Amino acid sequence: MSHLTFDIIKTDGQARLGTLMTAHGAIDTPAFMPVGTAGTVKAMTPEAVAETGAQIILGNTYHLMLRPGADRVERFGGLHKFMNWPGPILTDSGGFQVMSLKGLRKMSEDGVIFKSHIDGSSHNLTPEYSMQIQHKLDSNITMVLDECTGYPATEKEAESSMQRSMRWAQRSKDAFVARPGYGLFGIVQGGIYPALRQQSAASLQAIGFDGYAVGGLAVGEGQEVMFRVLEQTTPHLPAKRPRYLMGVGKPSDIVGAVRRGVDMFDCVLPTRSGRTDQAFTRMGQLNMRNARHKDDTRPLDPTCSCYTCRHYSRGYIHHLGLAKEILGATLLSWHNLHYYQDLMRGLRDAIATGALDAFTAIFAAEQNAGDIDPI
Amino acid sequence: MSHLTFDIIKTDGQARLGTLMTAHGAIDTPAFMPVGTAGTVKAMTPEAVAETGAQIILGNTYHLMLRPGADRVERFGGLHKFMNWPGPILTDSGGFQVMSLKGLRKMSEDGVIFKSHIDGSSHNLTPEYSMQIQHKLDSNITMVLDECTGYPATEKEAESSMQRSMRWAQRSKDAFVARPGYGLFGIVQGGIYPALRQQSAASLQAIGFDGYAVGGLAVGEGQEVMFRVLEQTTPHLPAKRPRYLMGVGKPSDIVGAVRRGVDMFDCVLPTRSGRTDQAFTRMGQLNMRNARHKDDTRPLDPTCSCYTCRHYSRGYIHHLGLAKEILGATLLSWHNLHYYQDLMRGLRDAIATGALDAFTAIFAAEQNAGDIDPI
Repeated sequence: MSHLTFDIIKTDGQARLGTLMTAHGAIDTPAFMPVGTAGTVKAMTPEAVAETGAQIILGNTYHLMLRPGADRVERFGGLHKFMNWPGPILTDSGGFQVMSLKGLRKMSEDGVIFKSHIDGSSHNLTPEYSMQIQHKLDSNITMVLDECTGYPATEKEAESSMQRSMRWAQRSKDAFVARPGYGLFGIVQGGIYPALRQQSAASLQAIGFDGYAVGGLAVGEGQEVMFRVLEQTTPHLPAKRPRYLMGVGKPSDIVGAVRRGVDMFDCVLPTRSGRTDQAFTRMGQLNMRNARHKDDTRPLDPTCSCYTCRHYSRGYIHHLGLAKEILGATLLSWHNLHYYQDLMRGLRDAIATGALDAFTAIFAAEQNAGDIDPI
Repeated sequence: MSHLTFDIIKTDGQARLGTLMTAHGAIDTPAFMPVGTAGTVKAMTPEAVAETGAQIILGNTYHLMLRPGADRVERFGGLHKFMNWPGPILTDSGGFQVMSLKGLRKMSEDGVIFKSHIDGSSHNLTPEYSMQIQHKLDSNITMVLDECTGYPATEKEAESSMQRSMRWAQRSKDAFVARPGYGLFGIVQGGIYPALRQQSAASLQAIGFDGYAVGGLAVGEGQEVMFRVLEQTTPHLPAKRPRYLMGVGKPSDIVGAVRRGVDMFDCVLPTRSGRTDQAFTRMGQLNMRNARHKDDTRPLDPTCSCYTCRHYSRGYIHHLGLAKEILGATLLSWHNLHYYQDLMRGLRDAIATGALDAFTAIFAAEQNAGDIDPI
């Protein structure tokens, strides 16, 4: 029995409308989780994040374990209290970021020994240690430590890597301390190989998790391959548990993945784009540094009801970008997060009314409608 | 007759409690004006600025004329609309910042020819042109163009400079287009020389302004000299018009200047300090980068009711500073602006109840009480 209640209210094709219940509140799915890397969703207050409609945010175990440190966060009463976010929090295992520290880490069956990018101190990230850290952070959704298989990888490499991830999944489960309203998600690996993905999904179900993530995608394989792997994976996951596509993605990635049965997403794109003067709109992406915006009194998106679009012009946001003003990063991050939450609301409404095909067609047509800037 | 109504409600010694009425709302005095250099109070939304209690902000003509340009701001409906600040705005003349561009500017009786720090373009800032720009910005309180006398300056230099400022004050007045709820302030110059200050005050009153600023202070002369010059100047200003001490200052500067009859202040200190991890508190100034804060669960100031102090610990703010997170600049700017507005509220309440001496004694004792960090 799971410690995270998940109710599926309605389906439309493979897509699912649901509610995931945690100790810190409910999450309507399909859901997008803004990334709060170092204990803050960059350039945003928590109240502004909530105002966009976000119900859950993601914290990065790698960053938080190094600074301010998991013990310190625990002494402050957990990450919710430390960062003033009373809602649900999902934390990653730290593995993905540690493994991307090429020359600074050493992998073994036990775990990953790595050096901090901040002070060079040495750390040993094992499945057991990752669970301890995530417990100290008071994460509502803990992720198993896995080995994110690189891309490209041969079938042999992908299999060996996936098998290790499955052993680590078992160790993560063994070390995880269950509590009501807190859960542990397994992560399917296996690269682009359907048989490996199927085998990984089966192994995880044999262990038993509160939810199932699809890992090792959005690492350079392209949208077409990603969608194909999803089609070959989600049918092998338990129907009644939430599914999370890690680190994804562009708006069109999300729409396509929801249609293939994914319930949860996270990505730095809306906030990172906001800090580099990029705006997502229903009509495409805008580069706010482009001089064509300087005299434009219209909001970023006339159909958007976010704080930024209610109060500020494209011309003003263009000005803030040129002047490198902090408020520019805040206004664009706010709008972009609101755009992503609007997209999720649209998807949920479409599933609720059995109109996902029509929603998808309109989404695709609008994205190609042409208010887009050359980036 | 003035186009800005100023009512003095109560006095306590030289200090005055008043209300200044503009087309965009009322300002309770003594007032502190946050600085919105380039069309934004750095790291703050306008709603957050208003939430601290600020009723008027300052815009910098020099920055705004170069980018986005006064004509563009006018096409957007003025600075209030452009930056989403519906309250009163005071703009400086641009002179102070232009004159600090040492090798890039050339002074003459006509005005100042200077090169833009942004694109090297050449501009000629005259009293008439400064008035035009400030009109286009839709400034509620326009400042005359003056020559800010350097420090130190001989009496002869200070006199010659002050005389030019008086001629420019007349030209500014002639070029200013009066409207109800919009006013023009003159600026007293004369360096540290009482006779010159008195002569300057008389010259300005002969021209007639809606308010009188004291310029050329906080330029290196120190608090003692500044207070002495104020004592030698404010008695020569009309009792019924607002007085503004430009670019000041530290909390103790403001308390001392209010006691010497000043009604309005502006300074970048609360926001600039916020972006460099400094916090003003009743017990002194904190350097939030100091490691002693890392495990401190207390707010910046337990007596403060600002957004930051209601929701965040010193330890969290210390963490944001180390991680160079934008939210750190926002939270500290918010707190510091709230501290300044609390100080002004305290001064106004003290004047209202005839308790300014007691307020000043408590202020001085608290500032030396010792929660201060070595900076």
